[in-house]
Amino acid sequence: DVAKDVDESLIEKFLSEVDNIQIQENLRELTKVPHMATTAGDEQTVQFMLKRWQDPESGLDQAWREEYKVYLSFPDPNNPNKVTVVNPSNTVLYTVREKEKTYTSDQNDPEVVQPYAAYSPAGHAKGKLVYANQGKPSDYQELNKTMDLRGTIAITRYGGAGRGAKHPSVFTGVLVYTDPLDINDGLMSDINETYPHSWYMPPSGVERGSFNSQFGDLLTPYLAAKEETYRIAPEDITGIPPIPIQPIGFEDAYRLICELGGEAAPAAWQGAFNCTYNFGSPGFKHTSVFNNSDVKLDIYNKDDVKNSSNVMGIIRGSVEPDRYVIYGNHRDSWVHGAIDPSSGTSVMLELSRVLGMMVKQGKWRPRRSIIFGSWGAEEFGLIGSAEYTEQYFTVLSERTVAYINVDIAVFGKKLYYLSRVDAPGLDSTSVYDNWIRYSNKTSPAHGVIPTMGYLSGAGSDYAAFVHYLGITSMDMSYTYDRSKTNARIYPAYHTAYDTFDYASRFIDPGFLSHQAVAKTAGNILIRLADSLVLPLNCSDYAESLEDYLNTAVNLYQTKLQANSISMEPLKHAVGSFRRAATHLDEVIRSSDLANETPLKVRRINDQLMLLDRAFLDPLAFPDKYAYRHVIWASSSAGKPTFPGLADAYVKAESSNQPKDWGKVHYHLSVLSQAIEGAANTLFDVI
Amino acid sequence: DVAKDVDESLIEKFLSEVDNIQIQENLRELTKVPHMATTAGDEQTVQFMLKRWQDPESGLDQAWREEYKVYLSFPDPNNPNKVTVVNPSNTVLYTVREKEKTYTSDQNDPEVVQPYAAYSPAGHAKGKLVYANQGKPSDYQELNKTMDLRGTIAITRYGGAGRGAKHPSVFTGVLVYTDPLDINDGLMSDINETYPHSWYMPPSGVERGSFNSQFGDLLTPYLAAKEETYRIAPEDITGIPPIPIQPIGFEDAYRLICELGGEAAPAAWQGAFNCTYNFGSPGFKHTSVFNNSDVKLDIYNKDDVKNSSNVMGIIRGSVEPDRYVIYGNHRDSWVHGAIDPSSGTSVMLELSRVLGMMVKQGKWRPRRSIIFGSWGAEEFGLIGSAEYTEQYFTVLSERTVAYINVDIAVFGKKLYYLSRVDAPGLDSTSVYDNWIRYSNKTSPAHGVIPTMGYLSGAGSDYAAFVHYLGITSMDMSYTYDRSKTNARIYPAYHTAYDTFDYASRFIDPGFLSHQAVAKTAGNILIRLADSLVLPLNCSDYAESLEDYLNTAVNLYQTKLQANSISMEPLKHAVGSFRRAATHLDEVIRSSDLANETPLKVRRINDQLMLLDRAFLDPLAFPDKYAYRHVIWASSSAGKPTFPGLADAYVKAESSNQPKDWGKVHYHLSVLSQAIEGAANTLFDVI
Ligand SMILES: [Ca+2]
Ligand SMILES: [Ca+2]
Ligand SMILES: [Zn+2]
Ligand SMILES: [Zn+2]
Ligand SMILES: [Zn+2]
Ligand SMILES: [Zn+2]
Repeated sequence: DVAKDVDESLIEKFLSEVDNIQIQENLRELTKVPHMATTAGDEQTVQFMLKRWQDPESGLDQAWREEYKVYLSFPDPNNPNKVTVVNPSNTVLYTVREKEKTYTSDQNDPEVVQPYAAYSPAGHAKGKLVYANQGKPSDYQELNKTMDLRGTIAITRYGGAGRGAKHPSVFTGVLVYTDPLDINDGLMSDINETYPHSWYMPPSGVERGSFNSQFGDLLTPYLAAKEETYRIAPEDITGIPPIPIQPIGFEDAYRLICELGGEAAPAAWQGAFNCTYNFGSPGFKHTSVFNNSDVKLDIYNKDDVKNSSNVMGIIRGSVEPDRYVIYGNHRDSWVHGAIDPSSGTSVMLELSRVLGMMVKQGKWRPRRSIIFGSWGAEEFGLIGSAEYTEQYFTVLSERTVAYINVDIAVFGKKLYYLSRVDAPGLDSTSVYDNWIRYSNKTSPAHGVIPTMGYLSGAGSDYAAFVHYLGITSMDMSYTYDRSKTNARIYPAYHTAYDTFDYASRFIDPGFLSHQAVAKTAGNILIRLADSLVLPLNCSDYAESLEDYLNTAVNLYQTKLQANSISMEPLKHAVGSFRRAATHLDEVIRSSDLANETPLKVRRINDQLMLLDRAFLDPLAFPDKYAYRHVIWASSSAGKPTFPGLADAYVKAESSNQPKDWGKVHYHLSVLSQAIEGAANTLFDVI
Repeated sequence: DVAKDVDESLIEKFLSEVDNIQIQENLRELTKVPHMATTAGDEQTVQFMLKRWQDPESGLDQAWREEYKVYLSFPDPNNPNKVTVVNPSNTVLYTVREKEKTYTSDQNDPEVVQPYAAYSPAGHAKGKLVYANQGKPSDYQELNKTMDLRGTIAITRYGGAGRGAKHPSVFTGVLVYTDPLDINDGLMSDINETYPHSWYMPPSGVERGSFNSQFGDLLTPYLAAKEETYRIAPEDITGIPPIPIQPIGFEDAYRLICELGGEAAPAAWQGAFNCTYNFGSPGFKHTSVFNNSDVKLDIYNKDDVKNSSNVMGIIRGSVEPDRYVIYGNHRDSWVHGAIDPSSGTSVMLELSRVLGMMVKQGKWRPRRSIIFGSWGAEEFGLIGSAEYTEQYFTVLSERTVAYINVDIAVFGKKLYYLSRVDAPGLDSTSVYDNWIRYSNKTSPAHGVIPTMGYLSGAGSDYAAFVHYLGITSMDMSYTYDRSKTNARIYPAYHTAYDTFDYASRFIDPGFLSHQAVAKTAGNILIRLADSLVLPLNCSDYAESLEDYLNTAVNLYQTKLQANSISMEPLKHAVGSFRRAATHLDEVIRSSDLANETPLKVRRINDQLMLLDRAFLDPLAFPDKYAYRHVIWASSSAGKPTFPGLADAYVKAESSNQPKDWGKVHYHLSVLSQAIEGAANTLFDVI
């Protein structure tokens, strides 16, 4: 019993039970109505999850909801946001569309929220329009060379920078749109080119989104947002826009951009419209009907503190109930959210159904406990999952083996993960083979292997688990062939077109890709929960650290030496880590673990489980909320190396101030100490 | 084997082997020469510890040294600090003694360091003298009412406030001395009253000390002070005196204070000198020979970065080598340090000898690993132990069951700890009975029990373990009957009279009290290392939290309610904790643990081991270096309740600013979340 290991026949059984039609029906149910966080539609999904997880035949051991009072931002349904072009005598010459165009009954649902920028302040902004490319700092610098930007309104296209970065206060207001070049491979016509004829975004489609640049409830940093919890004043929130912002469709952007005056923007700034993208004079061309007119934003967004629910479910472990494998996805969408997030939720429900059934039938109970989380209010800033990690910080830190996130399960047509599951549409090709065919790299230890990205950002609910708790995490999805389209994401993302109709006709007809994701994710989940020795490889971690080190030495060593800063401690630390990892591998390899004392196996598993925790430093990134993992934190330097070092180096190189070089040295010491500390956990325990 | 529990006969054997004469001889050896941190004498003690811990017959499994490069402060032997009284024409009227008077050959050792205030800056300060009582903020406020303090020199007596708090920059310099009232029960004469005739401090005795108010190496906060570690600039150090300070003996203080002019200081400020303690006019009386004269400090202290060593030794655990019980004491003294710290080191060496012998003879190997630490540079600010916790933060946090600190083993004549050991000099009385007789309290759960203090300060090397790592810790010593003397500490503390002669004649002739400490500490150490279930009681923790809560409600609730701040979440949290503790106790009581699976026992032990860790919050005390434990952190409010709450309340009550009340609310949320989080760890694991 204590030596219980993975049962391969049980995995076969699981794989054979995962059903594509069940996933399709889950999705149909989940997408009946829009279910933006805290709305009535959201509550319907809460009830649906509870019903499924409490099902006597295929539910979990226990399921319940947990509520948080969180700070959200909504447009006013009685007073819609408006974007207009007004001439000097205040005549409205042009009005931007307030709602996306209807192609199916879905768009007609009164609960479809008007496109808006969550956390944009309410306000009225008027000014001459300028085109600011992707709204990156470098774009603003470029634009600023050509004119005085004060008092202008910027129009920027999605991509390049995150939403949170698109709003410097030099402007009076910002419009943001999706250029057909970036999402539609240039196509623009809804007569025959865009949805409902294809997966491409219709001209009126608008990507909604949160313009908050940190994660978790904004009023309760580091504290779970309960009724009586201390809240900062809304005016003390950092990382939300100081100026009004509104997203618009490309049909309106086309009108505005093609009328802009001034010089032509650089080639890299040009999009798919059949006109030259000018900077703006600022404002429109003299020859335009909009000549001398302003763009005006009337934004009526309102903040609101509302109850948001996570739905939680557990399967109790038999041998090590005090070890948790967590599997989660958010439940809230912007509109119907068929792909984002309901594709992931449909997959989660199918794999929890199969596992629940095996448990209820007495055929299986995992070695370790499994926790399922259906997070609320992710779209506003990963709020439900972040509050959960704040509330349960201690137990989760002590006991969690791994976190698996499957948000958008299927972006398109090619899956990224592991073997044993056949890749749909490629008869004899396993998911693993297909993955390696489309995206691979060469590892010194393993040869050619699939590429895996690092979870260094905050793109979905894994963020708090990785960055705040230091829990080993993965995020997976099936995606499309990037050699066949330049779409930066599936085109209906965050629009009113992300519906069951769209998903079932254009993303995954037959739901075989969803099924492949469910099988793959479930396979991994079972192995994490059932393996006698955790399937986590510390030598692969060493390989990543060596990669990072090599990059850092190549990029930084010369200048660091010139500033009397030695990289030797970092090299030593990575060397220690490699030796320690090799040693632990050898201990695992040479032990007959099934016949070892359970405490020896536990010792090794604790070394593996806690490895990522060793890289946490709550003081390493004072300016980055909840980022504590010194290896995987986000970085703006854009180099594949240690994030804090890279960012500190960029700053020091640019200022050349001793205090900035001091910060580079400080970060090197933080890193070296963390890596040596991690290595210490892998060597003999004493 | 995995069900191995404490063997009572082995404890009997241990107790019977602990030898008072061995302790005496350890002390004799350790105190042959002064062994201030990083001096040649310190290196001798390093070699001695290593020799003993590497002894083939009674040593440990392994012993080694670990070095840190740390920032220290010393007087200049070639340019001794001077304190003089000079008249307006710069004639020196009086010179304070530079060295303590010689009574035995010990004081003649050229390595006796001149009395000084470590981390006082070098500098020349001259001004009129004022008497500032104990140098507490309230004392300065009182004094400030009577005169303009700018440019004056303060003389203050030890006691009341820590050394780190005695130096507001309104003064030009500070003298500090020990009043005979506070240490000698008023006695002053070395003809027949003070050492070498008794344990009392001779007139020239001076308490040395560090005037640094934080712990750990000052240049490397949160980073182990290795060769290449990033160091802050010395001018960026906070918490060290901005002005010159010098400690002096009471014979000199007597001359200075009794000549002071001005009004008489309040009764509470009067000491044992046979004169009225006046405030100073500022300066001396008109009738004094010092009339119109200044006091002048010429301080030549020098900072130095030097190698300081910890000596480490281990006994590997047999069943749970990855669980550590740590036992430590500092090794460095100010001079010969017979009592501080060598009494503790002598005890540690004796108990490690007996345990080592049992291990070498194959009679015993503990269930868990034991780590011994002989810390360096404690006197300068707990540096060796703090650097150790910084370097090994992760492994120690993950694996340490408890830390036991025995610094000054014997202050005088009555022992504080546990049963089974006879209290010396009280034939039929166990240490436990003796303890309870002299100091007891009534516990709702246990009735009359011995009083135990909380480790809420940073008085010795437990500080980093408790406050930074959240490791359950104890600090123990045998002390004197406070109804028989008002001495604030043993009178030779930090002077050149803390010698083997002093210890063996006046503190513990025959070394039976040392023996009792060794037996008691060893008994506890063995039980922590060998018990199947850790001897830590979470219901007692609940009792402490309830005490704290009751005090907080009584003191704060009315005003908090008036400010719309609810204490309900805190009450709820303490209630949850109590229920969880009762539940875990019941699980332990009702399980037949010797026949349970080892993983179930480990689960319970992990709940007990990690309990204190649940109270860590690295952001709770941004102004208190390395304080993270929200229950046991230090507080200046002086109330027996939650420290952060108490301090925030004092501030809010005094300012009555909304932002300060907000901080009270914030701290309440921090506390409630931590206590609920701790309770969560004690309930069923899932
Ligand atoms: Ca929060
Ligand atoms: Ca340090
Ligand atoms: Zn999503
Ligand atoms: Zn989304
Ligand atoms: Zn001491
Ligand atoms: Zn001391």
